[in-house]
Amino acid sequence: MSEALPNRCVLLNLRGVLTPDPLKTWAVDRIPDAALALEGDRVAWLGRAADLPAAWADAPRVDGAGAWATPGFVDPHTHLLFGGNRSGEFNRRLHGVSYQQIAAEGGGIRETVRATRSATVAELVASGEARLKAFRERGVVHLECKTGYGLELEAESRLTAAYAELKRRGWSLDVTLLPAHDLAPEFGGDVEANARAVAEDWLPELVRRHPGVARFCDVFVETGVFSADQGRRIFEAGRRLGLIPRLHADELTWTGGAELAADLGAASADHLMFCSEAGMKAMAAAGVTPVLLPATTLFLGMRDWAPARKMIDAGCRVALATDFNPGSCPCVDPLTVLRLGCLQLRMTFEEAFTAMTLHAARSLRHADLGHLHPGARAEVLLWDVEEMLELVYWVGEPYRPRFLPD
Amino acid sequence: MSEALPNRCVLLNLRGVLTPDPLKTWAVDRIPDAALALEGDRVAWLGRAADLPAAWADAPRVDGAGAWATPGFVDPHTHLLFGGNRSGEFNRRLHGVSYQQIAAEGGGIRETVRATRSATVAELVASGEARLKAFRERGVVHLECKTGYGLELEAESRLTAAYAELKRRGWSLDVTLLPAHDLAPEFGGDVEANARAVAEDWLPELVRRHPGVARFCDVFVETGVFSADQGRRIFEAGRRLGLIPRLHADELTWTGGAELAADLGAASADHLMFCSEAGMKAMAAAGVTPVLLPATTLFLGMRDWAPARKMIDAGCRVALATDFNPGSCPCVDPLTVLRLGCLQLRMTFEEAFTAMTLHAARSLRHADLGHLHPGARAEVLLWDVEEMLELVYWVGEPYRPRFLPD
Ligand SMILES: [Zn+2]
Ligand SMILES: [Zn+2]
Repeated sequence: MSEALPNRCVLLNLRGVLTPDPLKTWAVDRIPDAALALEGDRVAWLGRAADLPAAWADAPRVDGAGAWATPGFVDPHTHLLFGGNRSGEFNRRLHGVSYQQIAAEGGGIRETVRATRSATVAELVASGEARLKAFRERGVVHLECKTGYGLELEAESRLTAAYAELKRRGWSLDVTLLPAHDLAPEFGGDVEANARAVAEDWLPELVRRHPGVARFCDVFVETGVFSADQGRRIFEAGRRLGLIPRLHADELTWTGGAELAADLGAASADHLMFCSEAGMKAMAAAGVTPVLLPATTLFLGMRDWAPARKMIDAGCRVALATDFNPGSCPCVDPLTVLRLGCLQLRMTFEEAFTAMTLHAARSLRHADLGHLHPGARAEVLLWDVEEMLELVYWVGEPYRPRFLPD
Repeated sequence: MSEALPNRCVLLNLRGVLTPDPLKTWAVDRIPDAALALEGDRVAWLGRAADLPAAWADAPRVDGAGAWATPGFVDPHTHLLFGGNRSGEFNRRLHGVSYQQIAAEGGGIRETVRATRSATVAELVASGEARLKAFRERGVVHLECKTGYGLELEAESRLTAAYAELKRRGWSLDVTLLPAHDLAPEFGGDVEANARAVAEDWLPELVRRHPGVARFCDVFVETGVFSADQGRRIFEAGRRLGLIPRLHADELTWTGGAELAADLGAASADHLMFCSEAGMKAMAAAGVTPVLLPATTLFLGMRDWAPARKMIDAGCRVALATDFNPGSCPCVDPLTVLRLGCLQLRMTFEEAFTAMTLHAARSLRHADLGHLHPGARAEVLLWDVEEMLELVYWVGEPYRPRFLPD
């Protein structure tokens, strides 16, 4: 990274460029012997090197060294910031102790909430930045990140402040407020009072204290947590504060989460293991992105995978994400998600790749991420492979991209 | 690796040693603040550093730098040598083209057989050595390797010669003759003639040409390939040549493979997705090791995982392996197998770890591999983690061991 990229330059000597076409749903351009013209932080031109316009003939050259160039991965569902980890609980789970038993003893998400509540903003920033570096080394150039392990105003506020600081340091993030990630212990099971506190007190106060930091809000709509109706009221409160809805929906049971997402015009509905076919059609019609999280299915040892093919057939623009979090998916690796998308969700390579770039970016309402057509942010990954498919085929291998010089 | 290990030395400053107990079935010793005394290529003593016998007080020290020390992984089922790869076919499979369709067009295993038949011994050795280096970097210190992509005498002989050369170069391998890996095209579907050629001509000639190279022989016993009865005749021919049976059994359908393995006193029965409960009991009683291959289940997108828990409950010493091969599992990564063993086969960490060390070694009839008790080969891995469980918990992360200096 010692060499800086000129303001205007042409990336040449590529094996090719592989990029989703942002004007289509599932089309991937495969351009051999390609060139990319970059101006400032944007793609200015993309095509075959032989067709490079004369205006770029004298621009400085950057050597691609025979790599495939692709857009960076976008991860549209992470719980980036939390205190502690849950590897101790994990071993007990492998020994057959149930999640319910662990929760009854005060473990599970409660353990992470305790550790998060006692963490300072500086501690949260430090651990978050280490995780962001790991994501970036693996090719993730933009992430959605949720609050949600605070479950009270002050801890949620520290999480939001930590995200604000990470953005200030230059990390490319979208922040989602998720104080309704679970029932807060302080409400003693009074879900209605908890939902009211989130909608009427916490969300307005978080936005007042941290203006411009969060773009989205999220609710865990699930049997035994927040009902679809309580979710709707929280999302409506968020909407009045300028927050776009995205939701944890139909993860463990069908609760009408996909239907609610469609009705709200949410940006995304996530998990969707128990999504109804009506919900799929409603999401397709409303332009809601289903965000599927197969690494969570792997980590929890579940036997049923999200119905990706049915959703694609229903017309949905499916996205894939890591769901990075300490309890159900301690995974910062986009390759794990790409492989599971192909091997277990039965997406083609082109579909899974589009789901982790273009559709992931669209679910975050970014038109200039997830592809390399003119106007896109110049977040270019260089992969030293003969074919991009090798990243899936050689399963278990830790491929890492090269980056353009800063 | 510039520094050489003294002939007699003590490994100290370890966080601990984690090793299966070779006198028990599923017991893992966890020794904090441990020391390991090494003499020549053997473990001479293992215990707490504070209890180090006086005879070792003056031996040279090797600094473990706070790592966990474990035995190296043993991989008891690989198809290490083959020509070409199958990433082209893989993409077609992701696009929904069936294996049957690909095979009808002359693809699938036939493609690998063609590429293997046209490879020279030198080419096979070169690609094999690159793969062995990858396995070793990931902590695999001993492998079982099969012939089987020749399907004719001369190509099987070149594969055996290549394995002999790899052993001569110092790689720690057990070679298994598998000319009955599939039906050879030359027999035009006359399975009986094919089985007779393997038993009466090829196996004797391979052993005559390459004395002392192979220890095992293997047959793909499966509906539409070799019947249990044909398998039995091939194994009996192998036994007369000094080859111990291990078999591809009950992979795609139940064919009585586990029962046959028990009846033959085979070293192992491998795959076993469709193993009967009677077969499990028979294997436990006969001391046959079930070798399970979960990375193949992942790669083929299958929804049912091998019944590891039932086998453990039946009294079997379950082992895990990669099944490395170009068609159904291009995976050289023991971490992928360890993770799937825990997360999807629902083994505890200690069980999966034992399955990839002690029980894997036992299935190859090695008493001095897969543990670190006195007498074991000093194949010690050093892991810079707080707890070995992190290798599973941080799913997707490419942990690599350090090795003792050579
Ligand atoms: Zn989540
Ligand atoms: Zn095999």
